[in-house]
Parts: sequence; C-alpha cells; structure tokens
Amino acid sequence: MNGIHIRRATFEDLPAIVALLADDPLGAQREDASLPLAQSYIAAFRAIEADPNQLLAVVIEQDCVIGTLQLTFIPGIARKGAWRGQIEAVRVASDRRDRGLGRQIFAWAIAECEKRGCRLVQLTTDRSRTDAHRFYDQLGFEPSHIGYKRAL
Amino acid sequence: MNGIHIRRATFEDLPAIVALLADDPLGAQREDASLPLAQSYIAAFRAIEADPNQLLAVVIEQDCVIGTLQLTFIPGIARKGAWRGQIEAVRVASDRRDRGLGRQIFAWAIAECEKRGCRLVQLTTDRSRTDAHRFYDQLGFEPSHIGYKRAL
Repeated sequence: MNGIHIRRATFEDLPAIVALLADDPLGAQREDASLPLAQSYIAAFRAIEADPNQLLAVVIEQDCVIGTLQLTFIPGIARKGAWRGQIEAVRVASDRRDRGLGRQIFAWAIAECEKRGCRLVQLTTDRSRTDAHRFYDQLGFEPSHIGYKRAL
Repeated sequence: MNGIHIRRATFEDLPAIVALLADDPLGAQREDASLPLAQSYIAAFRAIEADPNQLLAVVIEQDCVIGTLQLTFIPGIARKGAWRGQIEAVRVASDRRDRGLGRQIFAWAIAECEKRGCRLVQLTTDRSRTDAHRFYDQLGFEPSHIGYKRAL
C-alpha cells in the first residue's frame, strides 16, 4: 500500500476535482478550472450530493486530492432486476499516474458496488484512451459494448 | 404518426416489460418472464420508482405495451457540470420492429433528456447488435466510446 485513501468528496474538494478533470487531453478543451468556479460546477456538486445513488469520491495522499471518480448506482429491470454500478470521470493527477494507483482505485470502486448489491460494473472509455483499454482488460472488464454519445 | 404513445411505467406494466426484455436474443438467456414474477423484478421496479433520476417508460399501442426503455439522469462535474441522459434497456415487441417506431421512441427519449437539462445523451449497445448500430448512427449518435462491463 502506498498511503492513499479514498473517501466521498466534500464541497471543499470541488476545485481540486475540476482541476483534475481539466488536466487531461480531452478535459482541457471542456473544463474551466479558474476560480471562483463557474456556478454550473457548484450546482452539479449539489445535485450529486442530494442523490443517494451518486458517489463522487476523491483519492487523498498526504491531505492532497490526487484523484477522483464518480460512481452511479442504477436500478434496472433487466438481468432479473440487477443493480449496476457505473464508473465515470476517473482521473489521477498527471504526476501520480502509475498502474498501482489505478488498481487501488478500481478495487475500491468495485468493493463499493458490491456493498450496494450491484451485479454488474460498467464504464465507457473514449476510443482514443488506448492505455486505459489495456488497463480495463487487465482488470477483467469485457469490451462487449459500443458507447454512443450525442450532444444536445 | 402511428397511434402510439409513451408514458412512465406503472407497476401493472411490469410483467409486460419483463416479457419484452425476455423476447430478445440476449435477454432470453438472462430473464425469467414466468408469473408470478421473481421478487427481484418487483424490488427493482420499486427502486426505480423511488428514484427521481430514473424514468422507466412503456410504449403503448391500443392499450398494449409494445415497447420499453429506461432513462437515467446523471449529474456530473465533467463538461462544466453537465447532466447526462442515459438510455438503457430499449426493447420493441418483435412483431412491431420497424425503423419508424424506434425513431419515435428515441425522439421522445431525447426530448425528455432536454426537458431535464441534459447536455449529452449516452447509451451503450452490445457489439453484436449491428442493426442497432446503423440506427444510432442515423440518429446522429457518435460511436466514440468502448463500453466495458464486468459481472460481480
């Protein structure tokens, strides 16, 4: 173990979370980490906090936020009424990216999904993130689906 | 228009929804539409009903359920705090499958996502559903992601 812990995010973590999302080849074009944060980030945090099926988390090392991820617990009728755990927005600080940390984050995420009774964990990843694909393959995820998106 | 309407599902629709999920090459192996329904289906319906960010819907033609889909509205920090609408478990009765009905269902689903302020609509589809892929392409969805799943 390498001295990290993972916990539910608080409002005080929000600037660090946005900074992590912006520190990424895709996120750099989409985010605005300047302070004060845009009101839309604050409203989103409050919506996540109010939803018992959302778990926004931060990875902490020596009192610093060095990673983030979001879990969404989704009830569904399919597969005999199976809950799914969905993992989105996983980011690790660029100077902390190593295979060991990613594995710890995913072990935590999967354990949280198990605690909630999920029978399936799912995520989508951009086709361009080839390093991530290898990582998910190694963790036992199956690339069984195509992820479609449409902007509104 | 062809005389259909789409509305939020009620508990009375549940047997028909499970039957639609079972009437599918992939669903046939996963579902059990026999009555009385397994308790796990009933618990899942109640969880969906209790969650304001879930919308389980049915497609009605002449008082019969001929289709179903589930929308999940997901708040997130990424993309400046954008809400996403996620479409899952879309099924149309095998004797009603035509391109026109699918388009109506997706127009409804996208309009619901817009009403909820979503800036993105997303879905994943099994790699084997090649007809569905053409359909989503035609609707303006981009197959930008890979969908990974892992059973627990």
